[in-house]
Amino acid sequence: MTSSLLTDLYELTMLRAAREAGVADRRCVFEVFARSLPEGRRYGALAGTGRVLEAIADFRFDDSDLRYLRSTGVLDEDTLDHLAQYRFTGDVHGYAEGELYFPNSPVLRVEGTFGNAVLLETVILSIINHDSGVASVGSRMVTAARGRPCIEMGGRRVHEDAAIHAARAAYVVGFDSTSNLAAGAHYRIPVAGTAAHAFTLLFDTEEEAFRAQLASQGTDTALLVDTYDVEQAVRTAVELAGPELGAVRLDSGDLEEQAGSLRKLLDSLGATSTRITATGDLDEYRVEELADAPVDGYGIGTKLVTGGGHPAPGFVYKLVEREGSDGQMHPVGKKSRSKATLGAGKHAYRMLVGGRAHAELVLPGEAEVAEFERELHAELNTAGASADWGRTELRPLQVPLILGGEPVESLSQPELVQQARRRHQESLTELGLSPDDGPDGPVAIPTVTDGTEAARVLR
Amino acid sequence: MTSSLLTDLYELTMLRAAREAGVADRRCVFEVFARSLPEGRRYGALAGTGRVLEAIADFRFDDSDLRYLRSTGVLDEDTLDHLAQYRFTGDVHGYAEGELYFPNSPVLRVEGTFGNAVLLETVILSIINHDSGVASVGSRMVTAARGRPCIEMGGRRVHEDAAIHAARAAYVVGFDSTSNLAAGAHYRIPVAGTAAHAFTLLFDTEEEAFRAQLASQGTDTALLVDTYDVEQAVRTAVELAGPELGAVRLDSGDLEEQAGSLRKLLDSLGATSTRITATGDLDEYRVEELADAPVDGYGIGTKLVTGGGHPAPGFVYKLVEREGSDGQMHPVGKKSRSKATLGAGKHAYRMLVGGRAHAELVLPGEAEVAEFERELHAELNTAGASADWGRTELRPLQVPLILGGEPVESLSQPELVQQARRRHQESLTELGLSPDDGPDGPVAIPTVTDGTEAARVLR
Repeated sequence: MTSSLLTDLYELTMLRAAREAGVADRRCVFEVFARSLPEGRRYGALAGTGRVLEAIADFRFDDSDLRYLRSTGVLDEDTLDHLAQYRFTGDVHGYAEGELYFPNSPVLRVEGTFGNAVLLETVILSIINHDSGVASVGSRMVTAARGRPCIEMGGRRVHEDAAIHAARAAYVVGFDSTSNLAAGAHYRIPVAGTAAHAFTLLFDTEEEAFRAQLASQGTDTALLVDTYDVEQAVRTAVELAGPELGAVRLDSGDLEEQAGSLRKLLDSLGATSTRITATGDLDEYRVEELADAPVDGYGIGTKLVTGGGHPAPGFVYKLVEREGSDGQMHPVGKKSRSKATLGAGKHAYRMLVGGRAHAELVLPGEAEVAEFERELHAELNTAGASADWGRTELRPLQVPLILGGEPVESLSQPELVQQARRRHQESLTELGLSPDDGPDGPVAIPTVTDGTEAARVLR
Repeated sequence: MTSSLLTDLYELTMLRAAREAGVADRRCVFEVFARSLPEGRRYGALAGTGRVLEAIADFRFDDSDLRYLRSTGVLDEDTLDHLAQYRFTGDVHGYAEGELYFPNSPVLRVEGTFGNAVLLETVILSIINHDSGVASVGSRMVTAARGRPCIEMGGRRVHEDAAIHAARAAYVVGFDSTSNLAAGAHYRIPVAGTAAHAFTLLFDTEEEAFRAQLASQGTDTALLVDTYDVEQAVRTAVELAGPELGAVRLDSGDLEEQAGSLRKLLDSLGATSTRITATGDLDEYRVEELADAPVDGYGIGTKLVTGGGHPAPGFVYKLVEREGSDGQMHPVGKKSRSKATLGAGKHAYRMLVGGRAHAELVLPGEAEVAEFERELHAELNTAGASADWGRTELRPLQVPLILGGEPVESLSQPELVQQARRRHQESLTELGLSPDDGPDGPVAIPTVTDGTEAARVLR
């Protein structure tokens, strides 16, 4: 399937009107950014960039697409002929996948003619909004888990294809594995899973069910112990598997209380290394509450794949700069009351002091970066800067992804995912939040747009 | 692509273990139901059934699927050979797509051997949870709109494939059109759309942008009037298009206030039939607030496609009855503290009095239906029933969808969608809620499981 119909009709009617008015070839800069983070979120986690590259490569109109578009009666033959030849030929720069983002971080910049770049709006936003929504809450869950492994198992709670990419986004931000086979197949993410209540209920007794599972999967499997009576189930499980039993899974009830008594019971039966896995409507707050409970891992579903109460991070695709009738580039922006946009293609850096993130620096152009450094040093001198302040670095956040329509790197999707997973971990370390602060708080670092403001952050 | 990897690993490990234990061929009944509706929701709207039929037909393991599964090391060759031959050969009964549902409504019943039916859990739940989540909130929006047309335009806020099926679900519950081209192509849903702020910003002046759009799309188009100054934009629009101007679109600010002054302005300029379309983060509550404003239609996005705060309706796929070692069918159910399930494949009817829905009747078997009718009549006689009570009917809710692995009807997806749209409208009429009651309230009709209880509902 091509990706070209994952698009809103108005992109094609705008293309038609712009071509008829002779302005479709004006050079344009579109930016993708979110105006704010959800209340309480300290940072966002960008995911989906690798999938955007794939979608742009597949963005062409085949015969069946064109037949359908003709049938709508909205496009003329000239526009349809143009679409038949369509390929994206512009440039895309963006934050590396897995990178953190903050309010107004320009996570993608698409440059090309209006006609070439306007068509990508919907598919880019769908991917970045969905994947980043999952990644942003997933990262919080991994932090709350404090190194205990997390399994993504929410596929059944979301659209069947979204499930695959939710698993992908979760892995990018540090989940260890997924229950979703398609995600395993496409992205080489480790898959995990054991058995459902249905399996226990299929047998005349729980003992028979456990025996069958152990015979098939070996003693290192996780047995589900809450179908009937938890204590009896655990006794049966250890009796059958011996102390080598891999894990027991709890999926209902008061997990904290149950985990405590389960641990005591397992220990008393000699199963001291048998792990306890908790599942059942967990989110980052529940995981946080279980920090002191003897839980060895989490299976997380609904709250992860639906973005933890914030399913759509609000990324928009805005025209910020375009060629005018004078042939020059001009910053542009909507001026009506709410939703005003800033204009001008922006450059972004993370300001680090001694390797620790202090601000998200978003500047309109290269010249402003030099100007910023000058201002910053002047300010630092004035304020009598400490040695630390001298160690200020600017880490560039935008990398070239597509130039002249061609991808800059030719990594496979599994390689892109591994790269993103490393990037996320490094950026999180740079941010230096502690799990002990809890999941919520003010935005971790400010977005600043000039040197004076940046120097103020350092003081 | 096959649908077989849209599955959690544990379904395959359960299959393997059940086959090795010699119980994979036990006959089973699985049911899909939601234990409750979200707080304040009066009913749910079932969607996705037509897509489930398609997914079951495509559920087979091809060479590349099997290669991947082999690489996981979790399945043996015997299980892989079995999967290579897998086809669903059982029966599926379910509520018609578009039907309303209530707590514990058995919206799908899947019957087959354990090995045959257990594999469908994830893909069925993904589809039904996603599509019904969108349909359930969409139905509330359509009611709040009181006949004014609603356009689905949320594709950019959700996963790119979920976007297609969100549009489909919205159309099932009465939306008039979608901006999503793939939904238009696959399901023959009318597509709609005009222009974005980027189009206005592309031109040196707003006037040039309007002129270009009108030249390309004709005067019946909708012009976006809030890029700069709304009043000036409207004057320009009517000057260029004349009073035949189709519509103006408002996307930001206080929509209620703006719609009022916009209507006055349009009327004063002679554009008395120009429509006002409101867009911008609308939900059923905002639409309700705009009931008295001179708005002629709504464009609805984020809150619709993300399920209006309840993205996952909580449908589960539970084993409720299975063959035992005695060769007889036995009801089964999980017994641990929360999440207990009832057991036994259930039959469902809507109890109508004079054509108006009064209860959702969920009974364990055919015999219980006769028993119910007997009890009901006895109760009615005792209570001195009114003439109305005599007009009690039971409308069967479950229809055969797949028998022996074969679909019962061979309708195209666009035909299924039209059928579902009619069903939804009819069931909603039967329920008889008034938009004046507002969107929220207690569940509209109780779910009852015996005749005495049903008679109590009628009193």
